[in-house]
Amino acid sequence: MRFEEALSNYGNLVDSRLEACFRELVWDAEKYHSFIGRVYAHAAEFLLRKGKRIASYSTLLTYKGYKGMVNEEILTVCVAVEFYRHSILVHDDLIDRDEMRRGGKSFHKLFAEFNDRFGEGLAVFTGNILLALALTTLLNAGFDRRTLQEAVKLLIKDYCAVNESQILDLLFEHKEPDVEEWKVMASKRAASLFRATLGIGAILGGAPSSDLRILEQAGTCMGYSFDIQDDIIGTFATEDQYGRPTGGDIMLRKKPLHMVYAYQMLRGRRLSLLKSLLRGGSLDQGDVMRIKEIIRRSGALDKAKQTARSYAREAVRLIRATAMSEEAKASLQGLIKFVVGSLDWYK
Amino acid sequence: MRFEEALSNYGNLVDSRLEACFRELVWDAEKYHSFIGRVYAHAAEFLLRKGKRIASYSTLLTYKGYKGMVNEEILTVCVAVEFYRHSILVHDDLIDRDEMRRGGKSFHKLFAEFNDRFGEGLAVFTGNILLALALTTLLNAGFDRRTLQEAVKLLIKDYCAVNESQILDLLFEHKEPDVEEWKVMASKRAASLFRATLGIGAILGGAPSSDLRILEQAGTCMGYSFDIQDDIIGTFATEDQYGRPTGGDIMLRKKPLHMVYAYQMLRGRRLSLLKSLLRGGSLDQGDVMRIKEIIRRSGALDKAKQTARSYAREAVRLIRATAMSEEAKASLQGLIKFVVGSLDWYK
Repeated sequence: MRFEEALSNYGNLVDSRLEACFRELVWDAEKYHSFIGRVYAHAAEFLLRKGKRIASYSTLLTYKGYKGMVNEEILTVCVAVEFYRHSILVHDDLIDRDEMRRGGKSFHKLFAEFNDRFGEGLAVFTGNILLALALTTLLNAGFDRRTLQEAVKLLIKDYCAVNESQILDLLFEHKEPDVEEWKVMASKRAASLFRATLGIGAILGGAPSSDLRILEQAGTCMGYSFDIQDDIIGTFATEDQYGRPTGGDIMLRKKPLHMVYAYQMLRGRRLSLLKSLLRGGSLDQGDVMRIKEIIRRSGALDKAKQTARSYAREAVRLIRATAMSEEAKASLQGLIKFVVGSLDWYK
Repeated sequence: MRFEEALSNYGNLVDSRLEACFRELVWDAEKYHSFIGRVYAHAAEFLLRKGKRIASYSTLLTYKGYKGMVNEEILTVCVAVEFYRHSILVHDDLIDRDEMRRGGKSFHKLFAEFNDRFGEGLAVFTGNILLALALTTLLNAGFDRRTLQEAVKLLIKDYCAVNESQILDLLFEHKEPDVEEWKVMASKRAASLFRATLGIGAILGGAPSSDLRILEQAGTCMGYSFDIQDDIIGTFATEDQYGRPTGGDIMLRKKPLHMVYAYQMLRGRRLSLLKSLLRGGSLDQGDVMRIKEIIRRSGALDKAKQTARSYAREAVRLIRATAMSEEAKASLQGLIKFVVGSLDWYK
């Protein structure tokens, strides 16, 4: 079975469970207030849009790699990971002023009936509720207390890290970080997420503790490569490929690795041009195109792609060094290739 | 010892531990990024402003009532409860556009150096970090896994409820809820918080399960009385008593119980006047004064005070029915009287 097919089958599996959770949430909420029922119905629609489910799939594969099978307990954990991921996305879209997510309205834009403050409040509070759902689902997944507590601690540690990286990401809009400073931020973003998702799968699957350390490094490398390619897509894909307008990072003066590299690699007139374009007021589509072209020509885009691929290779090497089943290793390798494979599409 | 004195001593005890936690957080963060260090330093200043610490004090007293003593473990849990409370306050101030909290700037106003979006993002993400700190602190408090897991579940259940109540609170700005609908919202606000804080103290203190059920009701009643008086203070206190401008609820068209009662009790011309005042655009201080006067004259303020006092009496009755030590019962009674006692100040 091709990797994409396996991922899609997995997506259907986890989606049907997510849907069942939301059916119950809406049903219960309707009993005390119809508007809360509506909020959960919107959250269901938001979560059930076709996402790639890569984070929770990495938990499933790691678990399977040690346990030798997939069961209802780990699928419940995967549902928790999806609640968790979307809790972060809802807050992220709000603060980045993204109006679309996976071809639909971002969460804060789903509640525009009264005023912006209403949509903003709904996004903050529903994001929080999704986190509560993630933790409750995880705590009720039917594993023993000791491993469950370790898994919860890992998830909370990542939650803290992810929110720190969001703060740095905002700060970087107003400064020019070098590669080291970018890495501090990125080490707490997808790197931290995959440390948690691989770690949770491994702990619950009963991995030896030496493997936990290897997977921590593997998750970090996977995360770096994921973030770099995700940022490249968000700037260099077409709107059709991306499902929403691209170039938002440039508009907000964000500093993904390809931009950090551009600052590092450019000299003279082109560097001044980039700086002056980014210094000004609001950018139009022409400015965005020019900035993309400067990044491309500087070699920064290619260098960022190379870095993503090199982290991906390192992740594969580390995963091969674990005691996981060969089948799970091959699937995780497929997942990593799937992530960086798309890099060729964006020129 | 008078209750206020005991509360103040407790405040010093928990503050010194909070301060130590933040010292460590700032120290660790400085190692990887000075701005994250600055965020934690601001969070420390925000949490260490003189607050009443009533929620965490109720956890301490309940624990003491069963365990017969106070120890480091429960004080750590109290620190977790304070992290938790402030996580909610940071988001609450942001969405309510409150610019002050306890005589200082609200959290989103502490980071105004770049633009509003920056302060908003800092508040969303730091609020999230405070929740992560609450859960981590609770999980590391040194209790056995079983009781700890119950305590974590209670806190997360409350977190979900509190965020649902925040959503209803926002919705009510745009409608006229009756008492029953108000109660749905309020049952998930302080009522839910005190269910959690008393419940956590009781579970960790080893209370019999019959007492857990009584304390659930007691916490609910405490919460209702707390919320009603808190809303009354926010509208009817002087700015000096309140530590920030009052009347914000009226400006935002919120529907605290005294407002719900006013809609219920007013007839004819006065009801039309209230509705037309609240329907219009932005309200000036004169409008706010007139609305307060209408609420007072309708008898709604007095009725809300009576309701708060009646919930307080019920809370005291329920606490007396538990197997807690007499000393703890007396202290919790003191805490409840302290909350509703202030009602006489606001005319």
